[in-house]
Amino acid sequence: MDFAYDAKTEELREKLLRFMDEFVYPAEPVAERQLRDAEDPWARPAVLEELKAEARRQGLWNLFLPDPEHGGGLTNLQYAPLAEITGRSPHLAPEALNCAAPDTGNMEVLAMFGTEQQKEQWLRPLLDGEIRSAFCMTEPDVASSDATNIATSIVRDGDEYVINGRKWWSSGAMNPHCAIFIVMGKTDPDAERHRQQAMILVPRDTPGVHVKRGMHVFGYTDASHGGHAEIVFDNVRVPADNLIAGEGEGFAIAQARLGPGRIHHCMRLIGIAERALELMCRRAISRVAFGRPIAHQGVVQEWIAESRVRIEQARLLVLKTAWLMDTVGNKGAHTEIQAIKIGTPLMAEWVLDKAIQAHGAGGVSQDFPLAELWASARTLRLADGPDEVHRMSLAKRELKRYL
Amino acid sequence: MDFAYDAKTEELREKLLRFMDEFVYPAEPVAERQLRDAEDPWARPAVLEELKAEARRQGLWNLFLPDPEHGGGLTNLQYAPLAEITGRSPHLAPEALNCAAPDTGNMEVLAMFGTEQQKEQWLRPLLDGEIRSAFCMTEPDVASSDATNIATSIVRDGDEYVINGRKWWSSGAMNPHCAIFIVMGKTDPDAERHRQQAMILVPRDTPGVHVKRGMHVFGYTDASHGGHAEIVFDNVRVPADNLIAGEGEGFAIAQARLGPGRIHHCMRLIGIAERALELMCRRAISRVAFGRPIAHQGVVQEWIAESRVRIEQARLLVLKTAWLMDTVGNKGAHTEIQAIKIGTPLMAEWVLDKAIQAHGAGGVSQDFPLAELWASARTLRLADGPDEVHRMSLAKRELKRYL
Amino acid sequence: MDFAYDAKTEELREKLLRFMDEFVYPAEPVAERQLRDAEDPWARPAVLEELKAEARRQGLWNLFLPDPEHGGGLTNLQYAPLAEITGRSPHLAPEALNCAAPDTGNMEVLAMFGTEQQKEQWLRPLLDGEIRSAFCMTEPDVASSDATNIATSIVRDGDEYVINGRKWWSSGAMNPHCAIFIVMGKTDPDAERHRQQAMILVPRDTPGVHVKRGMHVFGYTDASHGGHAEIVFDNVRVPADNLIAGEGEGFAIAQARLGPGRIHHCMRLIGIAERALELMCRRAISRVAFGRPIAHQGVVQEWIAESRVRIEQARLLVLKTAWLMDTVGNKGAHTEIQAIKIGTPLMAEWVLDKAIQAHGAGGVSQDFPLAELWASARTLRLADGPDEVHRMSLAKRELKRYL
Amino acid sequence: MDFAYDAKTEELREKLLRFMDEFVYPAEPVAERQLRDAEDPWARPAVLEELKAEARRQGLWNLFLPDPEHGGGLTNLQYAPLAEITGRSPHLAPEALNCAAPDTGNMEVLAMFGTEQQKEQWLRPLLDGEIRSAFCMTEPDVASSDATNIATSIVRDGDEYVINGRKWWSSGAMNPHCAIFIVMGKTDPDAERHRQQAMILVPRDTPGVHVKRGMHVFGYTDASHGGHAEIVFDNVRVPADNLIAGEGEGFAIAQARLGPGRIHHCMRLIGIAERALELMCRRAISRVAFGRPIAHQGVVQEWIAESRVRIEQARLLVLKTAWLMDTVGNKGAHTEIQAIKIGTPLMAEWVLDKAIQAHGAGGVSQDFPLAELWASARTLRLADGPDEVHRMSLAKRELKRYL
Repeated sequence: MDFAYDAKTEELREKLLRFMDEFVYPAEPVAERQLRDAEDPWARPAVLEELKAEARRQGLWNLFLPDPEHGGGLTNLQYAPLAEITGRSPHLAPEALNCAAPDTGNMEVLAMFGTEQQKEQWLRPLLDGEIRSAFCMTEPDVASSDATNIATSIVRDGDEYVINGRKWWSSGAMNPHCAIFIVMGKTDPDAERHRQQAMILVPRDTPGVHVKRGMHVFGYTDASHGGHAEIVFDNVRVPADNLIAGEGEGFAIAQARLGPGRIHHCMRLIGIAERALELMCRRAISRVAFGRPIAHQGVVQEWIAESRVRIEQARLLVLKTAWLMDTVGNKGAHTEIQAIKIGTPLMAEWVLDKAIQAHGAGGVSQDFPLAELWASARTLRLADGPDEVHRMSLAKRELKRYL
Repeated sequence: MDFAYDAKTEELREKLLRFMDEFVYPAEPVAERQLRDAEDPWARPAVLEELKAEARRQGLWNLFLPDPEHGGGLTNLQYAPLAEITGRSPHLAPEALNCAAPDTGNMEVLAMFGTEQQKEQWLRPLLDGEIRSAFCMTEPDVASSDATNIATSIVRDGDEYVINGRKWWSSGAMNPHCAIFIVMGKTDPDAERHRQQAMILVPRDTPGVHVKRGMHVFGYTDASHGGHAEIVFDNVRVPADNLIAGEGEGFAIAQARLGPGRIHHCMRLIGIAERALELMCRRAISRVAFGRPIAHQGVVQEWIAESRVRIEQARLLVLKTAWLMDTVGNKGAHTEIQAIKIGTPLMAEWVLDKAIQAHGAGGVSQDFPLAELWASARTLRLADGPDEVHRMSLAKRELKRYL
Repeated sequence: MDFAYDAKTEELREKLLRFMDEFVYPAEPVAERQLRDAEDPWARPAVLEELKAEARRQGLWNLFLPDPEHGGGLTNLQYAPLAEITGRSPHLAPEALNCAAPDTGNMEVLAMFGTEQQKEQWLRPLLDGEIRSAFCMTEPDVASSDATNIATSIVRDGDEYVINGRKWWSSGAMNPHCAIFIVMGKTDPDAERHRQQAMILVPRDTPGVHVKRGMHVFGYTDASHGGHAEIVFDNVRVPADNLIAGEGEGFAIAQARLGPGRIHHCMRLIGIAERALELMCRRAISRVAFGRPIAHQGVVQEWIAESRVRIEQARLLVLKTAWLMDTVGNKGAHTEIQAIKIGTPLMAEWVLDKAIQAHGAGGVSQDFPLAELWASARTLRLADGPDEVHRMSLAKRELKRYL
Repeated sequence: MDFAYDAKTEELREKLLRFMDEFVYPAEPVAERQLRDAEDPWARPAVLEELKAEARRQGLWNLFLPDPEHGGGLTNLQYAPLAEITGRSPHLAPEALNCAAPDTGNMEVLAMFGTEQQKEQWLRPLLDGEIRSAFCMTEPDVASSDATNIATSIVRDGDEYVINGRKWWSSGAMNPHCAIFIVMGKTDPDAERHRQQAMILVPRDTPGVHVKRGMHVFGYTDASHGGHAEIVFDNVRVPADNLIAGEGEGFAIAQARLGPGRIHHCMRLIGIAERALELMCRRAISRVAFGRPIAHQGVVQEWIAESRVRIEQARLLVLKTAWLMDTVGNKGAHTEIQAIKIGTPLMAEWVLDKAIQAHGAGGVSQDFPLAELWASARTLRLADGPDEVHRMSLAKRELKRYL
């Protein structure tokens, strides 16, 4: 047992921390200004392309991808601390490094399951940061936490598949650079429970694809993440070659996709919580009430101490989960993956709530990043299945040990 | 001791409940559509004027004002259950009845402390619902929970007062119908702690008044409440007659204003929580997961039961506070006013969080009112002073009993 | 609506508060000493008989009983504030006034359902405080929160009933003065769900009654309440006349018994919480750490303020429940009775936990009453059915409104 | 970074787990019976000596002591998982392995700071499990969380030191085998803040040592841990050679003693929480209510899942703390030591509370170990300084990073 990062991780952490200090943090106000001045509500700030170029130049590019040919060749455990750091500037850093959801998961899917042609056409430009992508799974009309509920149909018709259905919360799909969707649907609703689904590539500009609107989270459009689209697929036809892996493979692909995705989300949440704690401390030191900085108030001290305790605990469990995925695989890490999915957003939400409170009314406003970060942490208690579903599933596995 | 509403309250409740069913709830989707189609982000929906006309016709008008000549002639205890009902549709009902903050508090101030001329010029159109108003107290640069921190200056210069300062969170001031501000500032920074402040009437179109921007709460502009403005007062000159009550009276007026304001906020929060609970129940009944409505899930049942317990407890304390204000005055009800200020937003926030969770991802979106209502409940843990300041003050009074 | 106690209540409150000051609080250390010196671990302190005599002399006797002939002739709403006051000294005051559980419930059952002979033989000495009683319902082998689980049998055999079964948590049964048990069992296990049960009077000294042991709660024997016995009924024979009301009436009697019992428990918990808050305040004022009384620490202030808020809210809901029982009956007050059963022990537990923390290590010890009171509040989250069962039931009723 | 235990740890874990299964768990009912039958309330069960002999035979002896000559030669990180396992049977296993507090800390003090004579006289029999010891630090009259408050005096008089003072919560001192006390007091109240204190060895049978009583925690005497004594030192004279290390060294010794002690406490708490979770699962599976095992209830599943999440997080932070102590020393691990002191008892308390609730009324009683374990977890929120003091201190260190 050893709690130190290995040499490669330490080297990359240092490099990345320097990149954050030199390029990312200074770009934050620039990006904010560029977004405020943009006419298109879904525009991405120009400074982001500069960050991407610089990151790529420095070798801080596609680190999330274990494949050393296309990505960083890192284990989950090596990548996790880097993802945490990008979480400190979540609107810029992950995309600057080409490590932003949902592209990461989509690239993994293509790298693992894609044909050579699919890789050439979609994986390459994604790896180069030229285009972005979306993942279309959740549907408005059914409880999507139960995957067998999916109603979108993918029907073979000659050399094509015809797709019909309605999706929402397709994150990233409002981004004008988003060129390709991976759509989950059913090719055979009568097959065995986990063999009904398939995934298929649908270019965003295919006739019949109607991006209807962006969903809000609290009052935010999440434009910096490409929003969350509601999309209607109305007799959308794509070549049969666009199917990924094969009919009936959709559920298995989804499972393979989820593990790393959750690690990344959770590590970024740790970074978000760290930033919130830093902001809380700085505010506590600088804000005077009743004659002295509020850092002297016992209640504020409790928030700070308790935040530190919770962050440390959460980080270690995420790191251990990464290690388990590396050593015993996603399946062997199932309990821990669920545990961090349950525990980390709650932790981040708690720290952010206290940081907001320490900022007074400013904390809920656009003058600090806290309220928006809170909204995203809160939403992660629902994304990929609500906490309650994960707790139920985890409990059943725990109970099985005694049956 | 008697927990039944009196006859007058019951009669008004029935009338108001019918008004909600017949006019307000049906107007909600209309208003939403009108706002979505409006070009001005601060526009008010046209349907609101119809609601106001109807409410006035029915005698559901200015009920908040104890003065029977201009208002409903109701006690706090009689008005509170009506405010609760309006809270069920908080974007329309309070304004429809001309009982919306901050006008209510401002009208009370004018009714109690205004000169005949001030009443004629500002109170009358406010009572008629022709104009709206704002209250400019909080400042960005100081912890306003400590009233002696206020930095805005109100300096006599001949027949005029000259006002300089920066305010924010002036709720309602973004509303195009907002015509008049009541501004708190200091006329004598060297006077005794609670005799330094004054309040003065400043028409919104006075030269030197710069409404800079609307503050957001969790991404929302709160346009339906007229937003929360940041305002710069740059050598703003108004006639000396615009001063309310006199130099040094500002703190006392603020105190008089706060009690009823908190009762109203809290009662509306009870109504908001009731609506959230209703939505949670309806959703639980209609949403199927894992083969049956989620109403069958023990965790959802816990949320529902616990919501009911918390709402009942909170409502009674608010009602008792109203009764105390009626019987022993605001000062005698000080502990209880603080207690409801602390307890009610937390309760509503909790119920709303659970209702959101029961709605899945839809719950955080624009498709349900829950996330926006949550944001307002959360913000009320900061508005008029953060919870922590009120707890500290309440505790000190409690401790005094044993000193 | 009126939150003032009526004249009769006020008069009795004053009288009782004086009685507490003059007799009960001074008796606390005496009783403690007498108990410490007693050889019998179930002995009752001698000072208690003096308190009983004095209370009776002052007319503070049997106030719980609505029947004016034998009791105080008070409504639930009038009695509740008195029960709260006795809760401030829960080991002495309730029994001093002959208002202690489980006698109160048992006396109500006898007063409502008993025959003249049963009243003469058991109700009279109970009303006179000569004997005490126990209520034998919960069983160790089944989840007693589901009343149809009860396994004890009551079988008619000629002029007698024969009782077989095992009970536990029969509170008061370890008290040497306990002379009579009301035992719940099944006379007809094949009857309709709620017509299977009956209640029967079993003198404690009947052959076949084996009081096996006292159950502990968090290490306490609760000797001051007569303990909680495990009792085996082994072919116990009693005259057929000992049956209360009739075969199949047991469930209905239990329901009638529960409502007032919960009100009393909850009001005493309010009194307990008030005492804990007082102790917390006094400790905070007198205890110095890091150079000043801990009353200056923000965290301690939070505990105090939050305790006040929670106590006020809980008290009002209990009082409203009492009022509902008086005005619309136990059935009409069902939701509220469950709500206070859920909310009040949790509230008291919270306040006591903070009071303990403010007392440091002393708080968990025998030097302060806090830990023992905590244990009893905690146990009330399980007694008469765990919180979870009540929440489930309350939620189902709430959901029914929308079905 | 590596989350696997090393080979030595794995080997010892297996051995210890087997020892638990073969000897400790079977001894639990035996010990309980022996204690119930004992006349002396402070008696230790005879079976314990058998366990000790067996453990020693197997080489599971003194593992806590890093010194390979006298102890296990283990690092903190290697010992921690073993301490966790002993926590699963906290009344027997730690003492069976001669790894029970407060002996462990006292042996460390003697090993590090003792003279040869002190080691021969006291360390040797402690290492052999022949005698036990106590640590006398906390005092009833002052807030001992502030070490400079200590009032006990240690005054040189010729070849002797004279000790006067009153201590309480001297854990283990009620044990008849307890032969030696390490007493903290002041040799020079006028010296610099952290140079006033000293530690001195006082045999329990020295004239003037008055063991007054055992303090209770909730209703428990903690006899299985030797109780918590209140002790008066009345002109107690011991040879000057009994002083440990030197005058003014007391604070430094206390600091050195605290780190490992907290690790041990926290790891045992992890084991306690694991056992509580196991009991909760087993109960949930076997207990039927409303027609099916309560394991099917969503609320119970939530408790189980949430317990697993919290236990995993807490364990990792304790292990990391152990690793830090091994690699950067107690001082470098200061933040983490405080963090686990704050977080672990709260976690265990929460899990135990839920396990109790799942057991119904039995859960609070002597029929299950849960209530007693709860009481000890709760008490650890106060022992070695209340949570609040640690949070304050941790927060100040966190804030310092930004000053």
